[in-house]
Amino acid sequence: MNLQETVNLIRPLDPAALAAALARQDSLIKPLGSLGKLEDLAIRIAGITGNVRQRLPRKCIVILCADNGICEEGVSACPISVTRTQTDNFTLGRTGVCVLSRQAGAFLRIADVGIADDRSCPGVLDRKIAKGTRNMSKGPAMSREEAVRSIETGIEIVEQLKKEGIDVIGTGEMGIGNTSTASAMLMSFTGLPADLVVGRGAGLTDAAWHNKMHVIERALAVNRPNPDDPLDILSKVGGFDIGGMAGCFLAGAALRIPVVVDGFISAVAALLACRIHPGVKEFLIPSHASAEPGYLHAMKAMGLSPSLQMNMRLGEGTGCALMFPILDMAMAVADEMATFEEGDIVNDFMVDIRPTADDRGA
Amino acid sequence: MNLQETVNLIRPLDPAALAAALARQDSLIKPLGSLGKLEDLAIRIAGITGNVRQRLPRKCIVILCADNGICEEGVSACPISVTRTQTDNFTLGRTGVCVLSRQAGAFLRIADVGIADDRSCPGVLDRKIAKGTRNMSKGPAMSREEAVRSIETGIEIVEQLKKEGIDVIGTGEMGIGNTSTASAMLMSFTGLPADLVVGRGAGLTDAAWHNKMHVIERALAVNRPNPDDPLDILSKVGGFDIGGMAGCFLAGAALRIPVVVDGFISAVAALLACRIHPGVKEFLIPSHASAEPGYLHAMKAMGLSPSLQMNMRLGEGTGCALMFPILDMAMAVADEMATFEEGDIVNDFMVDIRPTADDRGA
Repeated sequence: MNLQETVNLIRPLDPAALAAALARQDSLIKPLGSLGKLEDLAIRIAGITGNVRQRLPRKCIVILCADNGICEEGVSACPISVTRTQTDNFTLGRTGVCVLSRQAGAFLRIADVGIADDRSCPGVLDRKIAKGTRNMSKGPAMSREEAVRSIETGIEIVEQLKKEGIDVIGTGEMGIGNTSTASAMLMSFTGLPADLVVGRGAGLTDAAWHNKMHVIERALAVNRPNPDDPLDILSKVGGFDIGGMAGCFLAGAALRIPVVVDGFISAVAALLACRIHPGVKEFLIPSHASAEPGYLHAMKAMGLSPSLQMNMRLGEGTGCALMFPILDMAMAVADEMATFEEGDIVNDFMVDIRPTADDRGA
Repeated sequence: MNLQETVNLIRPLDPAALAAALARQDSLIKPLGSLGKLEDLAIRIAGITGNVRQRLPRKCIVILCADNGICEEGVSACPISVTRTQTDNFTLGRTGVCVLSRQAGAFLRIADVGIADDRSCPGVLDRKIAKGTRNMSKGPAMSREEAVRSIETGIEIVEQLKKEGIDVIGTGEMGIGNTSTASAMLMSFTGLPADLVVGRGAGLTDAAWHNKMHVIERALAVNRPNPDDPLDILSKVGGFDIGGMAGCFLAGAALRIPVVVDGFISAVAALLACRIHPGVKEFLIPSHASAEPGYLHAMKAMGLSPSLQMNMRLGEGTGCALMFPILDMAMAVADEMATFEEGDIVNDFMVDIRPTADDRGA
């Protein structure tokens, strides 16, 4: 399924399922709306899948791995070899996302979409588009064709997961320098200045942070990406990992699988997907508020807000793993809580709470 | 163990375990501090238990149930009979906290510390101090002796849970009118005005909300609780449920069991415990930011911040159940992630990330 076919498949949430899910929430023995985002999540998932009572047992975190040519300019505290190192480590089960996804009952799908070497690794899908992007401070990071291919790689991975029966997907990434590409893309989409968006990534000194801002500003000045053309932004100042994640979000919307957004990089990829098709937004499940400053600006641009405040800034999809048990909780509430009408609970407070409760969301 | 004995047992976190837990976090293959609160939680739990690598498999949510005489003044949308109704429903397994605690692998311990009737219910501990408190807008809610007894009831429950081998405790409550008592107590402790603290509880109209504020202000004017005497505040404008929860926090600190704080009522009970002994703070695990406006003021008064932003306002201990899987994640990271020194992972990026990373918590 190519990018255009994917976009053409995207439909709104199922209004009948949304209405039935809201009615079910309001029939459960609690003040209206008092379970907040647990209710919102259950209603949204119903609108995605069409089912009011369900579980999401089969979980997968997709990790897109790629290198960024901008690292030549010293924007990261890490050498680019770390991209390969951690990609290989994902297959050994002992990085952060490995531990957290195991705890959440999720498995990992790891794809090389552009690591800057010729090696391969068992357990890593080889979908390399190029050996890293080019240095965006000197010209476009990739061609428009490569940008489309990176997105279609994410689409293909989600199509395969759909065939395997996956119920919910999380998005992760590994790519030294990708807070720089994500920052440049967010600045292009929103017009925000560098000092509001650019953070310290995996750890930068003050001097290195200022250099990073200048390099990103130079990349934008050299490339002049068109703010109204998402593919222009991706190709000029993006990365293959971000394109791949955007493909996951687009395919999730097209194939009606909820997709969890991780931290800053993931949020910018989600914003890219929303700019390609605004209907994607309803299929996104935010997780944690990244400690990277640009994260909240990306969320604001989409009108979304995270559920977790963990001060995390690791990436890899770690925030998605944390969100999975919260999603399971939301599904359990919709499925297992007693309703006011059921005879096996004491229900004499039904008439008292419901008419006087605040409006939903109050 | 009485209140004084409990307070006398409270010791600081174990400095050797804290140092070892921090060293372990900094040896794991991630940028320093990049797992944020997951790291903080693992370090804190180590300081509580003395163990650096551990799991907390045996979880329990204690639900303290009691009525409040202030309900005579129309401060709640619900009749007080709902306290009994929901207490009985907890034993049937299908309220919000029942579903969520089952999902989290936690069991419930339900105690009647002051429901306003003579009934009993299988599965509910009978620890009734009185049939509800008195109407605090006309005089003290309870005697000082009753206040101490409510705290000691919570202590006794936690002592029993310790004997049963429980690793972590959550605190819940059921008591129509207890957002009024919690608000009055928080105003007494902090001096904050009613309009910053008093919320709409399970659902109030504008008129009923203004009445609630006036009633609480009257209770404070009539009783003049001493802001420097926590037991005076509890006895004059508190509730048996809040006293019982404070006892859980105090006993958790004394017996070195982490105790999770739920929403607004639970946070005020935690503040009460901290005012009785400031060392309690280190044993508290915040969960979600309640939608009740007083919650964040109570957290601020303790110097704590929640991990979850769910817009929930149900009580019952529901937020604790959501926090349990996050705690499990924190324990798994400390126990399972690879270290830089271990031979079974690729570790050539160790030397690059560690010296340049931000300071912890940046």
